[in-house]
Amino acid sequence: MVRIALGQIDPSVGDLEGNVELMTAWASRATEAGADVVVFPELAITGYPPEDLVLRPAFVDDNLSALEHLAKRTAGGCSIVTGFVDRTDRGLHNAAALVANGEIVARYHKVKLPNYGVFDEQRTFVRGAAECAVRLAGSELGLSVCEDAWAPGPPFDAYAARKTPIVLNINGSPYHRGKAGERLEIARDRALETGAWIVYVNTIGGQDELVFDGGSMVVAPDGTLRHRAAMFREDLLIVDIEGDHSVAEDRPDWPDEPEDIYRALELGLGDYVRKNGFEEVVLGLSGGVDSAFVAVLAVDTLGAASVRALTMPSRYSSAESTEDATEVAHRLRIRLDEVAIDDVFSVYLNALREPFHGTEPGLAEENIQARIRGNLLMAFSNRFGSMVLATGNKSEYAVGYATLYGDMAGGFAPIKDVPKTLVYELVRWRNAQGPGEGPIPHRIVAKAPSAELRPDQKDTDSLPPYEQLDPIIEAYVVEDRSPEEIAASGDDPDLVERVVQLIDRAEYKRRQAAPGIKITPKAFGRDRRMPITNRYRPDASP
Amino acid sequence: MVRIALGQIDPSVGDLEGNVELMTAWASRATEAGADVVVFPELAITGYPPEDLVLRPAFVDDNLSALEHLAKRTAGGCSIVTGFVDRTDRGLHNAAALVANGEIVARYHKVKLPNYGVFDEQRTFVRGAAECAVRLAGSELGLSVCEDAWAPGPPFDAYAARKTPIVLNINGSPYHRGKAGERLEIARDRALETGAWIVYVNTIGGQDELVFDGGSMVVAPDGTLRHRAAMFREDLLIVDIEGDHSVAEDRPDWPDEPEDIYRALELGLGDYVRKNGFEEVVLGLSGGVDSAFVAVLAVDTLGAASVRALTMPSRYSSAESTEDATEVAHRLRIRLDEVAIDDVFSVYLNALREPFHGTEPGLAEENIQARIRGNLLMAFSNRFGSMVLATGNKSEYAVGYATLYGDMAGGFAPIKDVPKTLVYELVRWRNAQGPGEGPIPHRIVAKAPSAELRPDQKDTDSLPPYEQLDPIIEAYVVEDRSPEEIAASGDDPDLVERVVQLIDRAEYKRRQAAPGIKITPKAFGRDRRMPITNRYRPDASP
Repeated sequence: MVRIALGQIDPSVGDLEGNVELMTAWASRATEAGADVVVFPELAITGYPPEDLVLRPAFVDDNLSALEHLAKRTAGGCSIVTGFVDRTDRGLHNAAALVANGEIVARYHKVKLPNYGVFDEQRTFVRGAAECAVRLAGSELGLSVCEDAWAPGPPFDAYAARKTPIVLNINGSPYHRGKAGERLEIARDRALETGAWIVYVNTIGGQDELVFDGGSMVVAPDGTLRHRAAMFREDLLIVDIEGDHSVAEDRPDWPDEPEDIYRALELGLGDYVRKNGFEEVVLGLSGGVDSAFVAVLAVDTLGAASVRALTMPSRYSSAESTEDATEVAHRLRIRLDEVAIDDVFSVYLNALREPFHGTEPGLAEENIQARIRGNLLMAFSNRFGSMVLATGNKSEYAVGYATLYGDMAGGFAPIKDVPKTLVYELVRWRNAQGPGEGPIPHRIVAKAPSAELRPDQKDTDSLPPYEQLDPIIEAYVVEDRSPEEIAASGDDPDLVERVVQLIDRAEYKRRQAAPGIKITPKAFGRDRRMPITNRYRPDASP
Repeated sequence: MVRIALGQIDPSVGDLEGNVELMTAWASRATEAGADVVVFPELAITGYPPEDLVLRPAFVDDNLSALEHLAKRTAGGCSIVTGFVDRTDRGLHNAAALVANGEIVARYHKVKLPNYGVFDEQRTFVRGAAECAVRLAGSELGLSVCEDAWAPGPPFDAYAARKTPIVLNINGSPYHRGKAGERLEIARDRALETGAWIVYVNTIGGQDELVFDGGSMVVAPDGTLRHRAAMFREDLLIVDIEGDHSVAEDRPDWPDEPEDIYRALELGLGDYVRKNGFEEVVLGLSGGVDSAFVAVLAVDTLGAASVRALTMPSRYSSAESTEDATEVAHRLRIRLDEVAIDDVFSVYLNALREPFHGTEPGLAEENIQARIRGNLLMAFSNRFGSMVLATGNKSEYAVGYATLYGDMAGGFAPIKDVPKTLVYELVRWRNAQGPGEGPIPHRIVAKAPSAELRPDQKDTDSLPPYEQLDPIIEAYVVEDRSPEEIAASGDDPDLVERVVQLIDRAEYKRRQAAPGIKITPKAFGRDRRMPITNRYRPDASP
């Protein structure tokens, strides 16, 4: 019988000693639970992904010292498998170590290096060449790292040939919608091909635009899911494996949509704020649904005392907007300051009277208002040390329906990857959790979206309804389908062409956007690397 | 005798038909000159780098059609070698085609795919497996693409074995300081190893943060540089090769530093403006050296009629600053509008009186002023369709001595990769070109740098002198040296630690910065992918 502890922890990128501290504490809990080995996630020593930190030789040295330090500190306890950056004469490796009795007794080098989507591992690492099987408590355990499990081949074929009974797979696998199901499928495939137990250990936590959702699990050689750790929180799951049998504690079911999206947003926001040393966030409450939702998310994540809001009405704001903003703040019990922007706006108009003489008012005046609000929020950030949250959604970032340095201003944009229609879905779900009718007033959900930057403005003056817009964005951005293909599924070719052009032309804005949390298979940011200067203009007609 | 035309062109990313048009015109010039073949740069069909456009199947289809189209349109002329994206059952390839008599007669797939620095080629392409030698005018020519030439091995070893007399190497090789010398060295090494003529053809032009500087050349089998095309402009160089002999027109010498840097900045700025469809730029002239230099650069690049400036004095601006800004505009004959920001600033202070009650003025008030200026510049951009140029230098971006949404606001930041000390060097060089004492008044060069956001402020209140700061930035950012190593070369460890912390902590600002022109071996941006959330804090003491 082997007793394996799945150490689903939340390391911080770059915090080498902090991560050693964390693993030392968890290893001691695992030892107390009688585990033979505790398994930590991919690159748990450095945090994941360390990106170009790995290109600094001193950082790699310090990571190797940290691993030695972990080995020494845990010498009397159970064995440890953890992730670190190894260096050989072939280069740097994304590696797993087996640590036992204070020594590093085995090193495995990841064979498959992902270099797509958000991953750049071929930039910093070289491929490993061989499997690595170790003996523990009378059983053979194979080591593997993340992507190694995503396709047949090495090192799993070698473990199959050796009839290795248990393969450990340590991960830094980021969340997107539906990802837990994909992971379960690949774990099943590898279990069935290899005839081995698959012990899958994932990181949890937020790192810049990524959320690692946990969901560690144990899959039996027959492909059945036997045990799983929690999602979206740290967890130590102890599993006994003997032959075809296994025993572990039960955990609650993994959340379904849209709850899992909400949990991902909470984790991503909370870790970004905490790991960057902030104690408070500030955001503009417009009376619209996006800012109301971000306020709720922030309060659920950080607590009401760590969230403050500004309402910044202008001559174009309706009375209802200010009332609705005030009602949200009231229900959330957060501090709300009102700073009217009309006087400031008037003085700008005055200052520009001469150079703008003889021109027609338009977008310039609309954007000035949005940027006054951005400036005020940043002034609060500077004065009180609060991080500004930008409250724009994916639909707006996609088509550029947002003002650079205005409503796009902020240190973090939590719902940047959430399409508007999904914002409504999340609001309905969150309101259903209460208390009462929930934190977001019905009137906010019911009214037509408006930027309120000119009289009687509605989003639908400039954009198709979001029910029509969002599927086009999904098809073009996430699925890389051509305008022609999109129109062929029934949309008006002119509309598709217009939306696609808006998306292409907004690339320069997105390049200057705050980071936000990836929740779809393709988010804006490192996940989608489009040139700004791009003269490709495909048309939608066949 | 083979007559080869080196077609050093400036394609635009995504402009498939425009690039075909361009190559068709140049192929006809080459045909008139009696060339056997004209050689165009890497991925000339799509423009380089196409980044994730290549992940759209329809884009790859359209690029293949464009290549067919080029073949048909040039059927009666000389042969063509050009770069395109090929698709095989193994995946997508960064490829070179030989086009002859209206047909694609050979396809070569790049073997070495760079995946470091600014390059992500393993993200989108798969490696080629073999060399590709073609016969033309009685001689054998080997094909290769860019990175293939940067180290020994395939495909050059195969050409050496075959005794291929001429190897074509088509490139999308971006500029950085000293790069031309590096290229010459690798071309010599390959020539000597292979015993072949190396015909090196590079792109010219700007694409987002990259400048392709041209500098195409012909190196003889004995390693001597025989001919070179121009740098920083399009050029068609016709070379006759027979045995060990070659003939071509002379070109002027390549420019040395700092002129080459200035040429790179001109090309990068000019192409960014032109390829994104702008006809005018606008910038804030503070009276300081950075904005004065950017104004001169913009006028040299785009002409005085396409550049306008704003001077935006505040209560902390000296009379000299406004005079100096006015003098620069006068010398450059550009339109200068003055919009004083003090009234706007006062109304902001008034609006914030209540929420800021009981707090001390500080950074918040400084940044409000910078952001008022950003807002005004963006209003000009919105009203007149001019692109805003941000005028910050690399030293400021490195240590975060710049205001997000304030002086960092803009569509493009031309000197973002130019350290402050190099700005002065470039100013001295540019002034020496005249007319008279040059466009930048001596007083601007002589005065101590100041942000003028509070009374009597100097950059040296917050930062070490730039002569001391810039080498630390270079060592840490470009060379990836550790604080300890930097301090070991003689700098004060406390100072090094402070600078390194400033650099690390400004990552969140840089993530939202406008793109700018890479001129050093490591620029901020895609070249240096550091996590924002990063708790690695190495100290400088041994």
